[in-house]
Amino acid sequence: MRRAKVIFNDVTLRDGMHAIRHQYSTDQIAELTKLIDDSGVDIIEATHGDGLGGSSIQYGFSRETEKDIIKTTVAHAKNAKVGVLLLPGIGTIEHLQRAHDWGAQVVRVATHCTEADVSEQHIKKAVDLGMDTVGFLMMSSRTTPENLLEEAKKMESYGAGTIYVVDSAGALTMDDTRNRIALFKEHLNTAVGFHGHNNLSLGVANSIVALEEGADRVDTSLAGMGAGAGNTATEQLVAVMNRMGIPHGVDLYKAMDAAENVMKPMMERPVQIDRLSLTLGYTGVYSSFLLFAERAGKEYGVDPRDILTKVAEMGAVGGQEDWIIGVAQDLAKQKLSV
Amino acid sequence: MRRAKVIFNDVTLRDGMHAIRHQYSTDQIAELTKLIDDSGVDIIEATHGDGLGGSSIQYGFSRETEKDIIKTTVAHAKNAKVGVLLLPGIGTIEHLQRAHDWGAQVVRVATHCTEADVSEQHIKKAVDLGMDTVGFLMMSSRTTPENLLEEAKKMESYGAGTIYVVDSAGALTMDDTRNRIALFKEHLNTAVGFHGHNNLSLGVANSIVALEEGADRVDTSLAGMGAGAGNTATEQLVAVMNRMGIPHGVDLYKAMDAAENVMKPMMERPVQIDRLSLTLGYTGVYSSFLLFAERAGKEYGVDPRDILTKVAEMGAVGGQEDWIIGVAQDLAKQKLSV
Repeated sequence: MRRAKVIFNDVTLRDGMHAIRHQYSTDQIAELTKLIDDSGVDIIEATHGDGLGGSSIQYGFSRETEKDIIKTTVAHAKNAKVGVLLLPGIGTIEHLQRAHDWGAQVVRVATHCTEADVSEQHIKKAVDLGMDTVGFLMMSSRTTPENLLEEAKKMESYGAGTIYVVDSAGALTMDDTRNRIALFKEHLNTAVGFHGHNNLSLGVANSIVALEEGADRVDTSLAGMGAGAGNTATEQLVAVMNRMGIPHGVDLYKAMDAAENVMKPMMERPVQIDRLSLTLGYTGVYSSFLLFAERAGKEYGVDPRDILTKVAEMGAVGGQEDWIIGVAQDLAKQKLSV
Repeated sequence: MRRAKVIFNDVTLRDGMHAIRHQYSTDQIAELTKLIDDSGVDIIEATHGDGLGGSSIQYGFSRETEKDIIKTTVAHAKNAKVGVLLLPGIGTIEHLQRAHDWGAQVVRVATHCTEADVSEQHIKKAVDLGMDTVGFLMMSSRTTPENLLEEAKKMESYGAGTIYVVDSAGALTMDDTRNRIALFKEHLNTAVGFHGHNNLSLGVANSIVALEEGADRVDTSLAGMGAGAGNTATEQLVAVMNRMGIPHGVDLYKAMDAAENVMKPMMERPVQIDRLSLTLGYTGVYSSFLLFAERAGKEYGVDPRDILTKVAEMGAVGGQEDWIIGVAQDLAKQKLSV
């Protein structure tokens, strides 16, 4: 099958912010932007890990101001467009207007996978501003492909030009990814994107599956720099795409060298799959549940992974940390009665 | 599709030997064996990284004797069978007889993917000894699926009960894996196995694809402990198999805990994908070519990755290090004439 060139959206300077506690300096942002831009990536996203307005007590303060992060990236991106992330509720229309004024040309309006409704005004504003406007359905593993499509259709109706399946927890299997992307390609008139995490070691594989199903855009970062087990690593995905003959505009060697010589030495800790991130991918719950599950596990003498698995089965999507004590108590009782 | 329980062949104590320069102590071997055995793995392979007889100036001396490695593993494996690796040319019939006498019940007779002929006497001897006898076709990416099948048929004719597609360089894409395993399942009467490496970040994905195509056995190691970018990590593959409902006998939490609490702290360096291992996966050549390519690259001012890519295109399988200078010279000339 012949297909159009895949659009690479780099998230080293946005999802990667999580892995460095939002502490990139403008010098680092400038250096990384130059390298990513020179490698041929199409879009460079640069924002606090939790998007516009994310720098706060709740989400962690970034080292540099939003303005400096965006303007520095814009100043050093010669060919790539610069993008920002916006989570309605954290970021506002005003944040978006300012980011646009500082030179951002792409915005990804991100909601939980079952709450696309909250993106309406932000998507419409972005379209009004003439931005490349993307709907970004986070935690896409937490609902069915059919429900996810319904939410995507809402974003399409608001005017988004691209809709993403976002595997925030790295919890999608290859079949899960295939089903979601295929449904989007069949029923949406927008472009379709995929954002993967590596918790189950499927970041590259899921991205390939998404591209096989016709995805138009894909998210990657140098050396996988990103939250948890990290994102799909640019250089790894490009290597596989080259081997398969899938067209794109990224220079493999430049991406490899930037990842190895510049990105990895900047990391505070190696971005890799560990027990914690694997547990999140396996259970598919929000990372905010982890600490609670560990505490409850200790208190009631049950494995926190069993608590998370049960909470996930119950359909938790975020904000149901109060379920955890009840689940821990139930599991402890079951243990006694065995 | 309902399928039989997948047989896990652990290689932590064999392929993992490479990652620790063959320096596991008997205490470490005992500790790891207990944990791997207790996790429910079916076969535990324990040998020098290059198989029986591998401890030498050429391949590196192991810390413990072959006898102590095998007998320690046998002593602590309560449920799992103990296996050994044998590369004809390095190991001999006599090595095999001794390993069997020390309690090894499984042997994998390994040859380059186009040289199955050299395995005849070793496979026949293993069958005579009543061992679970496996043919192990290394560097399976370096020939076509059809040629690989012809080599597998030779091993089948010698008496092997299982034949493996071995992705030594971590160079197979998912389609490459699918094609090879599917052909084996269609045309062989033996069981079929898959041994993956993670150079292209596809260790878990390729193993899943192999299982989807009906593979009966799969190789893994704790935390991916193995040569280069490492093997398929047991705990990661088990997590995905659980999510997909593929039957096996491994306890996920025990594998996760053994990987995190015991295996990772034993590692001399993190087993991960770096520029070097990614280059090997991308070009698919033997690691022995790397040093030569780097030297020639420096001397002639060309990128060693271009040299390796070209050498791979020329069909190198190992032992053609002398091609490298010629390729480097040609690339340097092309560079001048551009």
